[in-house]
Amino acid sequence: MNDCIFCKIAAGEIPADIVYDDGEVLAFRDINPEAPVHLLLIPRRHIATLNDLSEADAALVGRLYLAGQQIAMELGVAESGYRTVINCNRDAGQLVFHIHMHLLAGRELGWPPG
Amino acid sequence: MNDCIFCKIAAGEIPADIVYDDGEVLAFRDINPEAPVHLLLIPRRHIATLNDLSEADAALVGRLYLAGQQIAMELGVAESGYRTVINCNRDAGQLVFHIHMHLLAGRELGWPPG
Repeated sequence: MNDCIFCKIAAGEIPADIVYDDGEVLAFRDINPEAPVHLLLIPRRHIATLNDLSEADAALVGRLYLAGQQIAMELGVAESGYRTVINCNRDAGQLVFHIHMHLLAGRELGWPPG
Repeated sequence: MNDCIFCKIAAGEIPADIVYDDGEVLAFRDINPEAPVHLLLIPRRHIATLNDLSEADAALVGRLYLAGQQIAMELGVAESGYRTVINCNRDAGQLVFHIHMHLLAGRELGWPPG
């Protein structure tokens, strides 16, 4: 996707503070962090929204979570806790139309989640 | 898990307002809704937290999302938007130690997500 900022980050065309890359899933720090740890995890493959996931993508979504688990352990927040958030479309405030999972940690997170 | 409330809901031993059940994933309404649509999606199989996911569970996590997509379409909120949230451990406020995905929709959701 020529105009997708996350595809450009994945391609190395736009800089980002990348903390994880396994070739399929990439994680980098949110430029507007809302917690001491606030990462975005994306599949390298462009999928616009959760509505665009196909049956064949099920394992890929799981890969985001396994990457998140590994990163949380490496950053020392797995036991204290972390929240994952994926926004789909306007009411959720999705700004970049390339699926991305927010991972927030390092402080007590309130409820409701927005 | 004998003392897990979500396992009991999945077994039909505790009532819940179930909106979806494909034998692997179950969805029911949160008893303390924070949005016009506020569902919990769980795998029937007991997995305590995101930290307990194994490589073999990747597709199961994806099934939660595919179920969420289908439910969002059926409830008419797929295009307006929805937010998915999974809490892991204390800092995220996880209360029931059986993985569950919150799906919130039907209003504009704020930021940060907690």
